[in-house]
Amino acid sequence: MKLLLKNVKAVNVFTESIEATNVLIEDDKIIGVGNFYDEKDADEIKDLQGKYVCPGFIDGHIHIESTMMVPKRLANAVLPHGTTTVITDPHEIANVCGTDGIKYMLEMSENIPLSVYVMLPSCVPATPFDESGAELFAKDLRELYSHERVLGLAEMMNYPGVLFDDYNTVEKIDECVEKGKIVDGHAPFLTGKDLDKYVAKGITSDHECSTFEEAKEKLSKGQWIMIREGSAAKNLEALSPLLDAPYSQRVLLVTDDRNPADIISEGHIDNIVRRAIAMKKDPVKVIKAASFNAATRFGIKNLGAIAPGYKADILVFDDIENIDITDVYKNGKLIVSDKKVIEFDEPVPDEKLSKKVRNSFHVNKFSKEDFFITPDGDKCRVIKVIEGQILTDEVIEEIDFSKNNGVDITKDLCKLAVIERHKNTGHKGIGFIKGIGLKNGALAASVSHDSHNLIVIGTNDDDMAFAANRICNIGGGLVCVLNGSVVSEVSLPIAGLMSEDSAEKIAEDNRVLREKVKELGINENIEPFMNMAFVSLPVIPSLKMSVNGLVDVNKFEKVDLFVK
Amino acid sequence: MKLLLKNVKAVNVFTESIEATNVLIEDDKIIGVGNFYDEKDADEIKDLQGKYVCPGFIDGHIHIESTMMVPKRLANAVLPHGTTTVITDPHEIANVCGTDGIKYMLEMSENIPLSVYVMLPSCVPATPFDESGAELFAKDLRELYSHERVLGLAEMMNYPGVLFDDYNTVEKIDECVEKGKIVDGHAPFLTGKDLDKYVAKGITSDHECSTFEEAKEKLSKGQWIMIREGSAAKNLEALSPLLDAPYSQRVLLVTDDRNPADIISEGHIDNIVRRAIAMKKDPVKVIKAASFNAATRFGIKNLGAIAPGYKADILVFDDIENIDITDVYKNGKLIVSDKKVIEFDEPVPDEKLSKKVRNSFHVNKFSKEDFFITPDGDKCRVIKVIEGQILTDEVIEEIDFSKNNGVDITKDLCKLAVIERHKNTGHKGIGFIKGIGLKNGALAASVSHDSHNLIVIGTNDDDMAFAANRICNIGGGLVCVLNGSVVSEVSLPIAGLMSEDSAEKIAEDNRVLREKVKELGINENIEPFMNMAFVSLPVIPSLKMSVNGLVDVNKFEKVDLFVK
Repeated sequence: MKLLLKNVKAVNVFTESIEATNVLIEDDKIIGVGNFYDEKDADEIKDLQGKYVCPGFIDGHIHIESTMMVPKRLANAVLPHGTTTVITDPHEIANVCGTDGIKYMLEMSENIPLSVYVMLPSCVPATPFDESGAELFAKDLRELYSHERVLGLAEMMNYPGVLFDDYNTVEKIDECVEKGKIVDGHAPFLTGKDLDKYVAKGITSDHECSTFEEAKEKLSKGQWIMIREGSAAKNLEALSPLLDAPYSQRVLLVTDDRNPADIISEGHIDNIVRRAIAMKKDPVKVIKAASFNAATRFGIKNLGAIAPGYKADILVFDDIENIDITDVYKNGKLIVSDKKVIEFDEPVPDEKLSKKVRNSFHVNKFSKEDFFITPDGDKCRVIKVIEGQILTDEVIEEIDFSKNNGVDITKDLCKLAVIERHKNTGHKGIGFIKGIGLKNGALAASVSHDSHNLIVIGTNDDDMAFAANRICNIGGGLVCVLNGSVVSEVSLPIAGLMSEDSAEKIAEDNRVLREKVKELGINENIEPFMNMAFVSLPVIPSLKMSVNGLVDVNKFEKVDLFVK
Repeated sequence: MKLLLKNVKAVNVFTESIEATNVLIEDDKIIGVGNFYDEKDADEIKDLQGKYVCPGFIDGHIHIESTMMVPKRLANAVLPHGTTTVITDPHEIANVCGTDGIKYMLEMSENIPLSVYVMLPSCVPATPFDESGAELFAKDLRELYSHERVLGLAEMMNYPGVLFDDYNTVEKIDECVEKGKIVDGHAPFLTGKDLDKYVAKGITSDHECSTFEEAKEKLSKGQWIMIREGSAAKNLEALSPLLDAPYSQRVLLVTDDRNPADIISEGHIDNIVRRAIAMKKDPVKVIKAASFNAATRFGIKNLGAIAPGYKADILVFDDIENIDITDVYKNGKLIVSDKKVIEFDEPVPDEKLSKKVRNSFHVNKFSKEDFFITPDGDKCRVIKVIEGQILTDEVIEEIDFSKNNGVDITKDLCKLAVIERHKNTGHKGIGFIKGIGLKNGALAASVSHDSHNLIVIGTNDDDMAFAANRICNIGGGLVCVLNGSVVSEVSLPIAGLMSEDSAEKIAEDNRVLREKVKELGINENIEPFMNMAFVSLPVIPSLKMSVNGLVDVNKFEKVDLFVK
C-alpha cells in the first residue's frame, strides 16, 4: 500500500530546512520525498494543503510508571501530542517486581502504536537502606539485553558507586558497554575529575543538568544532554541556550516524570518543543532535538527523519511557530486523526506476569496495634516537610505519649509509618511527621520512591490501619480515609503503581482525591502524596523514614526515633 | 600508565571550539580533559607548550590496494599525515583472491598502529563481462560480518541492480542491513526517484558527488557525503560548501584511490583538511568531518574526539591554519615523533593465505603466437584513449595485416591484449589501441580494473609475450620491455596489486618506470598504466577490451573486432 502525503512543508533534519514537497509512504516506511511524486505513484492520496510535517517526537527518558498509566494508555495520552517513541526506564516496577516487572512492561508495549524502547534499571534498590521487591545485579539484567527493544542501562544514579569502583556497579556498566549497548547518566552537579571518571566509564548522557554551565561541561565531555521538562523538575529555561548551534546537535528532549494532568493540560514532548520555539529557538533545530537526535543517541536506525528508508512516524500541524498537532502517522498508518486517537489492538500480557504484577502486596492484615509506638523517652526526631520540596528538615519535638500515642494535631504532629510490603518481613518504621496539616483521618499510598513500600500518615491508629488495609485490598494506589471509611482513592492495581485507566480518569481521580484531602485540613501549599512518595527515599536530605526506622541522610546512617 | 599532555589547545568536536587545557591518557584511552589535571595525576608528563591537539584523522573510504602498499606500509605512509584509522574496501584483492583476499587484508592489518576497518566488497565481479578470480554472493560474505573490524557492505556500484531489484544484489544489501551493519553507496549522478529507491534500500552514503547540488540532494535524503580527494578524482573544490553548517554535520573526508607519490608529496586526509582550511572553512568543522563524523557514520564508538572514554588517537601540530603534524599518538602511544614513524611490530599472515595471494597467476607460458590476430577483414574497431581520461572512444580503422600483424606505429596503432589470468581459462581479447604513442617494445600490467587480468600493449608480438611472461614470473606488477629484456618494472607480488615495499620505494619505482616508458615515445599527456588499468573496465564508455573481446559499453554488449 502506497500513500502519498501531497503538498506538505517537510522539516528536513539533515539540511535543517523546510521543503515544500510530497512524501511517499509504503507500508511502514517513507520511500520517497519530492515534488516529482504524484497520483500515479500511490494507491492513496492525502492532500495536506501546505501543512507542515515533521518526524514523530521521541521522549528520550521517561518512567512510564510515573504517569500511572500502562503503556497502551500512555500511547492514548501522548500520541495526540506527537510522541511516537519513548525510551523508558522501568525503574519503579523493577523495584516492586524485579525482572518480571521489566518483562511485563516489554510485553505490555508490544505492537502498540507507540514505540517503547527500554533502558534497564541500573540501581535496584536505589540505596542499601531500601527494602525493595528485588535486587538486580548484572547477572539478572544479562538475559534482557537480547530483547530487541532493550537499548542499554538506564540512568546510573549511583555515581558514588562509579567513582569508588563499587564492584556491582562497575560490573553492570561494563557488561552493558561490552555488549555495545548504551549507558545513560544521572549525576547532578558532577564536575571536574569526578565527571571525567564517570564519563570515561562509558556513561554518555545526562538529564540532571540544572544550569547551562553544568550542561556545557558535560556536553564538552561527550555526553548527550537531555533537556527535561517533567511535572516537578523543569530545566528548559536554564538550558535553552543548548538549543542553538553547535550544542543543539547533542541535545534531546525528555519528560522523566510527568503526571497525566500535565500531559492533558500542557502536553508532552510537544510542550517542550512549543515552549522552546516561543523562546525564539529555531523550530527546525528544536524538532531535530525532539526526534532525530534522540534516535541517533540511542542508535535506533531509520528513525527521526522524513527521508527515504525512515520509519513513517509523521506529525501534521498548521503552524510551526505554535505547533498544535492535528494528525499523526505511526508506522505509516494514521493513528491520530483530527486530534482523536484511532482505536488500536491492545496487547494481552502473559497470564503469569500479569498475576505477578497484580499481586504485589505481601503483608498480613493490619490492626491499629501495628501503628502503636512504645514510648522510650519524651523527645523524638520528627520529619518536617518543606512546602514545594522533597527535601525535609529534622526537628526535635517533645511528645506527650499520654494522649493519642503522641499524635497532636494542634502542633501539626501526625504519625508516619513506612511498612515493607514486598516480602512480608514485618519490617516497619514508625514515627512522626510535621508540616502536612492533616486534621483528621489518614492517608496511605503505595507510590513511594524508590522501593514503593507502603506509606501511611494519620491522625489516629484506627484510620491508619484501615487505610493500610485498603491499599493492600485494592492492590495499590492512593487513599484518603476518615472514621473507618474511604473518602476518596486512586486505584493503582498494577504493582501498586499503575492503572489501566485512561489519563483522563487517572487525572480526575487524583484531582478529586486532592480536593477531599484538603477538606481534612491539609496545608494549602502541600501536595501530600508527593511528599509521601519521597519521604522514604533516603538519598534526599535531611531526615527520611525507612522500613527500618529513621535515616539521617546527611550522615547516611540510621538514627533512633527517641533522642536520649 | 598515565600520560599527561600538558598545555595544549584541544579541538573539541562537541562544542566545536578550541580549549586551552590538559589531556590525561591511561593506556589506550583518554580519561580526562581539564586544567585541573597536573603532575600528580600522571606517571609521565609531556608539556606541549601550547600546541594544538585534535583527534586522529579517519579516511572514510579507501582501497588500500590502490596505494600498492600492504596495510603495514600504508601505516608507515599515512601516520605522519595524521591518519590513524581507515575504512577500506578490499574490492581489488577480492576480485583476484575472493574472500581469502579479504581475510588476508584483515590479518595483515591486525594490531598495526593504524586501525583498519573493512567494508565488504559488494560487486565482485564488477560486471557480467568480467572474469575475475572470484564471484562473491551474499552467502560468501555472510561469515565475514562476524569479524569485529567488518562494518558493512562497501560501495554499491551496481545501482542498476538495486533499481531493478536484481536478486543477488538485493540479497547482499538486505543481509547487511538485517545484521545492523552499514551499506556504503556509489551512485554518480543518481537523482530523483531513482535516488530515493536506492537510499530507501538502506544505502546511506555517497562518495561520487561531483557538484554541490548533487551532494545536497543526497544529503537531504539522509546520505552521508564523503568528500573525496584521490589521485585522479578530486571533489573538494566543488563540494566545499558542504563544510559549512549545517551540512558539515553529515560530511566526511576520503581518498578512495590515492597513489604513494601523492601521499608523500601532498599528504593524505591532512591534505584535504589543509586545503579546506585554506579555502577559509572553519578548521574545527573540517577536523570534525575528518574524525568524529567518520566514526559516527560508521558507528565506531569512542573514536574521533578528545574526551573521556575516547581512544587516545591524537595529533599534535603548531598551526591550525596550516596543519603540519609533528607528533601522533595512536592508542595512547607515541607512534610519530617529530614526523618520524616509530618502529612497530608487523603482523605475520597465515601461511596458507600468504601463499594464496602471492601465487595469484594461473596461466601457461606465453609465446608470440598467443598475440597473433587472424585477419577476418580489413576494418577494425579500435579503442582510442583520451588524454587525462579513463573514457575511451571507438574509432574504425583500416588495418594492413600484411605488415607486423596490423600494428602500425606511424598511425599510432598498437596491439592490445587482455588475458584471463585467474583460472587459466585461456580466454583473451586481442585488438588494437590508438593514442598511447608507444613506438617500440611492450608494456604489461596486472593492475586492471576491476578483475585485474593481464593487460599487454605492444608494438610487436615477441615483446608482448616477453612482457606478459615477466609479469607472471614476478607475481604481478607493471613492466616495460624492449627487445626481449626488461627496461623497468614495479613489482607487485601480492595479488598482482601490492608490494611490501615502502611508499618511497614504490613511488620511486613508478617514477622511473614512467620515465623509461616515455623514452619509448609515449604521448606526453598519457599515463599509460592508468589507461591500461581502466581499458578493461566495461562500465566506462565507449569501447573497452574484455577477456572475451571488445565490449561496446554504451550498448553494454560484445562487439566483433572486425567491422563487416
